[in-house]
Amino acid sequence: MKRREFVSGLGGAAALAGCAREPAGQAAGPQNQQRFSWKLVTTWPPNFPGLGTGVNTLVRYIEEMSGGRMQITVYAANELIPALEVFDAVSRGTAEMGHGAAYYWRGKTEAAQFFAAIPFGLNAHEMHGWLYYGGGLDLWREVYARFDLMPFPAGNTGVQMGGWFNKRIDTMDDLKGLKMRIPGIGGEALRLAGGTPVTLPGSEIFTALQTGSIDATEWVGPYNDIAIGLHQAARYYYYPGWQEPGPTLECIINVGAWNQLPEDLKAIVRVACQAATLDMTSEYMARNASSLRQLEADAAVEILSFPPSVLVGLKALTLQVIEKLAAADPLVARVWESYRRFLDESEPWQRISEQAYLATRT
Amino acid sequence: MKRREFVSGLGGAAALAGCAREPAGQAAGPQNQQRFSWKLVTTWPPNFPGLGTGVNTLVRYIEEMSGGRMQITVYAANELIPALEVFDAVSRGTAEMGHGAAYYWRGKTEAAQFFAAIPFGLNAHEMHGWLYYGGGLDLWREVYARFDLMPFPAGNTGVQMGGWFNKRIDTMDDLKGLKMRIPGIGGEALRLAGGTPVTLPGSEIFTALQTGSIDATEWVGPYNDIAIGLHQAARYYYYPGWQEPGPTLECIINVGAWNQLPEDLKAIVRVACQAATLDMTSEYMARNASSLRQLEADAAVEILSFPPSVLVGLKALTLQVIEKLAAADPLVARVWESYRRFLDESEPWQRISEQAYLATRT
Repeated sequence: MKRREFVSGLGGAAALAGCAREPAGQAAGPQNQQRFSWKLVTTWPPNFPGLGTGVNTLVRYIEEMSGGRMQITVYAANELIPALEVFDAVSRGTAEMGHGAAYYWRGKTEAAQFFAAIPFGLNAHEMHGWLYYGGGLDLWREVYARFDLMPFPAGNTGVQMGGWFNKRIDTMDDLKGLKMRIPGIGGEALRLAGGTPVTLPGSEIFTALQTGSIDATEWVGPYNDIAIGLHQAARYYYYPGWQEPGPTLECIINVGAWNQLPEDLKAIVRVACQAATLDMTSEYMARNASSLRQLEADAAVEILSFPPSVLVGLKALTLQVIEKLAAADPLVARVWESYRRFLDESEPWQRISEQAYLATRT
Repeated sequence: MKRREFVSGLGGAAALAGCAREPAGQAAGPQNQQRFSWKLVTTWPPNFPGLGTGVNTLVRYIEEMSGGRMQITVYAANELIPALEVFDAVSRGTAEMGHGAAYYWRGKTEAAQFFAAIPFGLNAHEMHGWLYYGGGLDLWREVYARFDLMPFPAGNTGVQMGGWFNKRIDTMDDLKGLKMRIPGIGGEALRLAGGTPVTLPGSEIFTALQTGSIDATEWVGPYNDIAIGLHQAARYYYYPGWQEPGPTLECIINVGAWNQLPEDLKAIVRVACQAATLDMTSEYMARNASSLRQLEADAAVEILSFPPSVLVGLKALTLQVIEKLAAADPLVARVWESYRRFLDESEPWQRISEQAYLATRT
């Protein structure tokens, strides 16, 4: 994960999640009419499609449901603080609330990224299963408690695309020397394959790709990739997005601020996060589909599948990266154990349900 | 759709959806402190896993977020009215709120079932895309407005299983004479294949299958099927659930009751439905996965894929059934047109995203 990426606020991915399984609030009598005026700092450019607009949806839900008792002012990346400082700012209480993705905080704890996305790991549907019904959210809370933060899943982009390439990838050898903008564990896997992972803020990707200073880039998917013009800077658009199968976005809240909320407002924030998550996955479903149609009609774009040998190779390298992280940090080891246990169980079910159904239909 | 099915309250499937895209409520000052005491009638047995418990989650969300201003009493099937009368009871205002699935109301309007599940149609993820971002929810409101009902998506089981069979299905000929408990359009497709669709309440399925009075049954999936013991009544467990790829559950509200709610409570109900939807899909993801593991360890159960020729055959027959309904009813034709248009666009995207990713991982 490279710092400038996050500073830009155009940090690659999004996530799917919902809201927390708190102890139930007591249904009290007439509400505490205290008003709360909160700041929400985000890692996204203002109103960025899907990610930034998803934050706006979350805020709208909270304001509507609270009848105006909670007012939340959204600050896009760099408006109040740099994007990469969202975690620290909310931890300190400079802002009460933040929105981003947990893999941005690898520098704080390597365990964080399991709550966003892991290459070849859980997809969005499975992330929700793990977080809400598989112990994932409890672990996330434990990991963030040390930083005085309360995390909530608050969005997901669904499976991303593998990215844009200026040359074809036919074998693992084609990754050697490849300079690609790809963050996180996926980037480390590319490095083991002989490539050079690069981090660039979203605002610089287009130019870097067009001028040849990078050979390839991953970003999000058709809806967001068209928005920054990547289809005009590279010919080959590869799938699937092995590196981010269903990245969860997060809403983080300063624990001191959280504890001041009455029970009904706590419930409103929790449930709003869960609803905003489904809203975002639904938007990406609809808009990726229509944006793909646009790309398919573009003669300058070739949409290609990574060859199986490349995916098999990258999967093996990804496991090397993760095992090394787990060996170095007992907290990573515990989170990975829980995550992998869920994946071991969900995979056979997905094979005979979603996967079998989609294969049947086409 | 057969009446006894719904009366029993064990009516086959569930659904995924969220909440409505209403005009934003004005964030007013101190709340209207009026209290609302509502009845919610459901088509489910009390606390039935996933479906009934999902209703409890929805109610808990609303009560917690409203600080007790809304109190909702849940009536399971037959506690206040028979399951099949939920639609009429809420339409008349006998109860303010109901929970079930739209395909139960085919007798009111054939258009309703498109808002629950169509064989070989949209899966849960796509249903959400269509409902929230593809015009589906607007059409649903239009269809239900004639009945003084306001519908909200409020749950989804995800892809179901094809069902339990006491004989192997190797060709379309094996469907001839097959007596199978399967409701709706899927049942009509089976009839065209020479089989006999039967409707039975969930409480009678086990005995009917065990005594041989039916040869096969579909129900939901591992989590719910184990709950009623189907693995002890038949050997062959087939996938995928072509007949219900992602059934949406609904929350319906009497329009007169809805209009009495202040804006903040309207927002609370809407957002609670959307959050409860994600919660239910997450529960089914986790619990179907663990229940499948249990079935895989059971030597008396064989888990099999339908042969491609059977799926191709059933898909063609399903289209015949739908085209006939659309030719007979302009409202069905309009809804089908919107649904099919979304499916035409989502299918290519699913192919290179979820489907390609899941195939890669396994």
